[in-house]
Amino acid sequence: MTANTAAETASQTATPRVIPIAVDTGTAYGRPAPTHRADLTEVGPGSPMGELLRRYWHPIGMVADATDTPRKVRVLGEDLILFRDQSGRPGLVYPHCAHRGTSLYYGKVEATGIRCCYHGWLFDVQGHCLDQPCEPGGGKARDKVRQPWYPVQELYGLIWAYMGPPERKPVLPRYECLDVLDEGELLEADDSSIGGGGPQIIPCNWLQHYENLVDPFHVVILHTQFSGTQFVDQMAVMPQVTWDTQEHSVRTISDRKLPDGKTLHRISEAGLPTLRVIPSPRLGRFGRVESLGWVLPIDDHSFRIYVVGRVREAGELRRMRTRMNGKLWEEMTEAEHQKYPNDVEAMVSQGVIARHSDEHLATSDRGIVMLRRLLLQQLDLVREGKDPQGVSFDPDAPPVHFTAGNFLVD
Amino acid sequence: MTANTAAETASQTATPRVIPIAVDTGTAYGRPAPTHRADLTEVGPGSPMGELLRRYWHPIGMVADATDTPRKVRVLGEDLILFRDQSGRPGLVYPHCAHRGTSLYYGKVEATGIRCCYHGWLFDVQGHCLDQPCEPGGGKARDKVRQPWYPVQELYGLIWAYMGPPERKPVLPRYECLDVLDEGELLEADDSSIGGGGPQIIPCNWLQHYENLVDPFHVVILHTQFSGTQFVDQMAVMPQVTWDTQEHSVRTISDRKLPDGKTLHRISEAGLPTLRVIPSPRLGRFGRVESLGWVLPIDDHSFRIYVVGRVREAGELRRMRTRMNGKLWEEMTEAEHQKYPNDVEAMVSQGVIARHSDEHLATSDRGIVMLRRLLLQQLDLVREGKDPQGVSFDPDAPPVHFTAGNFLVD
Amino acid sequence: MTANTAAETASQTATPRVIPIAVDTGTAYGRPAPTHRADLTEVGPGSPMGELLRRYWHPIGMVADATDTPRKVRVLGEDLILFRDQSGRPGLVYPHCAHRGTSLYYGKVEATGIRCCYHGWLFDVQGHCLDQPCEPGGGKARDKVRQPWYPVQELYGLIWAYMGPPERKPVLPRYECLDVLDEGELLEADDSSIGGGGPQIIPCNWLQHYENLVDPFHVVILHTQFSGTQFVDQMAVMPQVTWDTQEHSVRTISDRKLPDGKTLHRISEAGLPTLRVIPSPRLGRFGRVESLGWVLPIDDHSFRIYVVGRVREAGELRRMRTRMNGKLWEEMTEAEHQKYPNDVEAMVSQGVIARHSDEHLATSDRGIVMLRRLLLQQLDLVREGKDPQGVSFDPDAPPVHFTAGNFLVD
Repeated sequence: MTANTAAETASQTATPRVIPIAVDTGTAYGRPAPTHRADLTEVGPGSPMGELLRRYWHPIGMVADATDTPRKVRVLGEDLILFRDQSGRPGLVYPHCAHRGTSLYYGKVEATGIRCCYHGWLFDVQGHCLDQPCEPGGGKARDKVRQPWYPVQELYGLIWAYMGPPERKPVLPRYECLDVLDEGELLEADDSSIGGGGPQIIPCNWLQHYENLVDPFHVVILHTQFSGTQFVDQMAVMPQVTWDTQEHSVRTISDRKLPDGKTLHRISEAGLPTLRVIPSPRLGRFGRVESLGWVLPIDDHSFRIYVVGRVREAGELRRMRTRMNGKLWEEMTEAEHQKYPNDVEAMVSQGVIARHSDEHLATSDRGIVMLRRLLLQQLDLVREGKDPQGVSFDPDAPPVHFTAGNFLVD
Repeated sequence: MTANTAAETASQTATPRVIPIAVDTGTAYGRPAPTHRADLTEVGPGSPMGELLRRYWHPIGMVADATDTPRKVRVLGEDLILFRDQSGRPGLVYPHCAHRGTSLYYGKVEATGIRCCYHGWLFDVQGHCLDQPCEPGGGKARDKVRQPWYPVQELYGLIWAYMGPPERKPVLPRYECLDVLDEGELLEADDSSIGGGGPQIIPCNWLQHYENLVDPFHVVILHTQFSGTQFVDQMAVMPQVTWDTQEHSVRTISDRKLPDGKTLHRISEAGLPTLRVIPSPRLGRFGRVESLGWVLPIDDHSFRIYVVGRVREAGELRRMRTRMNGKLWEEMTEAEHQKYPNDVEAMVSQGVIARHSDEHLATSDRGIVMLRRLLLQQLDLVREGKDPQGVSFDPDAPPVHFTAGNFLVD
Repeated sequence: MTANTAAETASQTATPRVIPIAVDTGTAYGRPAPTHRADLTEVGPGSPMGELLRRYWHPIGMVADATDTPRKVRVLGEDLILFRDQSGRPGLVYPHCAHRGTSLYYGKVEATGIRCCYHGWLFDVQGHCLDQPCEPGGGKARDKVRQPWYPVQELYGLIWAYMGPPERKPVLPRYECLDVLDEGELLEADDSSIGGGGPQIIPCNWLQHYENLVDPFHVVILHTQFSGTQFVDQMAVMPQVTWDTQEHSVRTISDRKLPDGKTLHRISEAGLPTLRVIPSPRLGRFGRVESLGWVLPIDDHSFRIYVVGRVREAGELRRMRTRMNGKLWEEMTEAEHQKYPNDVEAMVSQGVIARHSDEHLATSDRGIVMLRRLLLQQLDLVREGKDPQGVSFDPDAPPVHFTAGNFLVD
């Protein structure tokens, strides 16, 4: 490196003299500190979105996760312990023993509940204290003690929890696309965060992924032009897109003119509160949506995805995990992540929580605007003391039906 | 996994219709955020408990820890440097050189003190500045500079520091049970946190361990029923327990009816301010307590334990470290820690600082209530400008005597 | 270890009785919590020093760092992306895409700029939006969008950025000592933080290093008496030192009487705003200063150093990295770092930001006082709306000249 290259000299000579002719515009100097929409993103107890999300059932584990070995789970910013008593009942409890706070993670599971390791207090799956072995008579006042707990149910291979106000507990919903199986299909559940494009636990706010569901355009750029065709050639065609708001979802309708003159008519939905109703982008079979996913906010800064789908053989869901450059996400080097970004890179790099004040939304982001509006309406309902859309208290209600699917039109 | 198992269908059918018959009670929803007793737990400069603890001498290292290689120590939230000048005097000083703040950890120890590596200022063990080699005449104003320091003494194989107001400095106490040795006994010191049941530095507040000293019941549950008999069979018997408050301790008196008709009469004490006066739970020999331990708060979030005991051969103390499933704590897997919890798991999982607002104390926790009351009385004394119990200004006072021990009664 | 050693008994016996004769003075008890000079140290947007530093050009990378693989850089507390478009223009932009915030670290570099991986928005090196491929017509309103950017220039093998108010952008300075090469010399740039004595990124505030430049005395203590002669024997002689303040630097003039009767007359400078104008302490050649360094504050808690120098063969600068005990810094064990401290140990151990309230400056620190005064004057100028010293708006101004050098005087 020598002091004066020709290029440098030229560039210096080109500098305007004494008084600059033009002042730079649009530089990063002096821009305001970015902020995020706390109302839409933060999920802890007492926060507006946290209260809204607590009005719904959420999947918090696989059926097999509840065993006689207590398991730590974190949901909506709360640390909890999941277990299954020896009678087969799943339980989800506050981790710190009501007595003196030792974690029930170290507890022993018995026929009727979980026993704390420190002084042996025993709690059933609803937090009732059944024994206090160091107290006279096993604890004459033990009925006054309650270990905080949450109701859980098992369905579709998942364990579901309701963490909201007890008097607002809705019925656990069923879904038509999971209840009605075609010939040769079976149901499978998966907890590897299929659709997230990365690790099981994704280190950014859940809303960044949820909004991605109403964004069909990134498929053409991120999943095709940048990182190679991740799905199938047909998805690489730039679609004509419209959106509409349904009773409890925002639908994205994408039409792609295919080379053979046909049209790929694709409907996907972002359902309340966190549902992924996304037909397979691999277009294996046309017709109604094959799987549902639920985005679970672990806390404000991370989320994971549970999926249940109709498959033809066991393990089919897990094999759907994206490979980039032939590798699973965790097998890639940093250089490969940079060169072949996927959803997880696009979203996590928006920030742990995206900087909403810096956004410049355009016409292709209309779905995001509509989804935020739908969420804001639900926040209003809850604030007004009402129930949000998409909850039902009728155990006889028919299963929820979605119109999502991939359809071939002549 | 198929969509409709018989069990799931049954559980759905059992759900009450339209209007639920019963609303869940005692769930974790809406519980207040937990809080801790700051007055009893936090130890930094200026905090109530920090000021109380600073009225006593604390062991801050083994005699062998003070050498001509400066050593970092952390005590009551303060970072300090321990060294021994080449004349044999131990010193404990503020780490940042009074000149420009470089750490004396990088200092060179000389005959008369420690010299900073940056500009060579030399300080003796009382912080007097003896040399400023870059100043004219070695620093004509060097007498005006003082490196902050704390007085230390050596006793029982430990180095003791007094970190409180100088005018309140008590006499370093001596203890009868360490001063009077039986035939064949020798004194040994240990810094491996014997009694903590885990690593040398335990990552939770010191009070959680200190309170454990007046809790004889967890021996029967945690140390026997959960993790297998860690001590001896006799300790597995559920004791009859009473507590009393002495001048500067809370005593726990546990009586166990043994199979042979005799009674194991066991007295242990939690002494002011952080003393473990716990007779061996291994019951090797009956009679007066064999060792003393001091719980040293490193800061609000971690502590360690120094122990001095009368032994019959060197290394006896260290061999007392608990083994679970045949292994030392640091050799165990996470699954083993979960399956064989020890004191450290019980306490650390209470939280970095226990959630006192969530506690439900019972009759078996009377000792804890009494110990907190004793501590609160000391906080009051200090706040009123008085000296707390358990300090003495009389160098001729007899050694402190404890009544703790294991005794066999017919 | 036995209970009563002779020494301990003696020391106890020596304790004064009942009422202590003397109370300890100067202990660490009750000292106020230390504070730092925020105005002189903190560099984030909007802070006084941050605004002052933003009035100057700073080196933010090597010319070779700007490529078609986007690179993360952090400067003055701001995260930025450095790249070079396929036409050869370097660009420095805000990382989060103006559209929806995905990082341009995952962007694709093209002939005219960088394209975001998520929806393909394309920006040139001045942040103009050139394409929005998912919008109708490539984005009819794309001219209203600007990706925040900073102007950069290339000189002396480095990439320079101006991050201040656009209307105050000065001319990028040139330096006589780098523009005028002696016979056989060539110019070389280095980013290994030569002069820092440690790793490339040094985990403490930049001011601690900058102040070190006007401190010639530590050479005799730290670099000689403590860690062995790191430079040459002549530098071990205690110098006679004077300082003066120039138009935009503080000069240190050190005279050393050498054994041969000659005098080593050495002038070094700390230039505004972060310049190291330090003649080689290895005294290879006498005469004017051979290299310049720039201390780059990465943020309040870390900095790095870029150096450009006249050398006789490529790689000469890099070979100047200090070895202690024969090893490079990163090859040393913790014990070796403690035994052979270097600048980095002396400075980092002052604290992430030095505790200025604890300082005791002496006559040998006069240079530091003068340098702080020079900085405070610049803070005043900026606050008053004026330009600080050392910036020029005249592209025809002659290169900056320094008087620094090593000179042998009879």
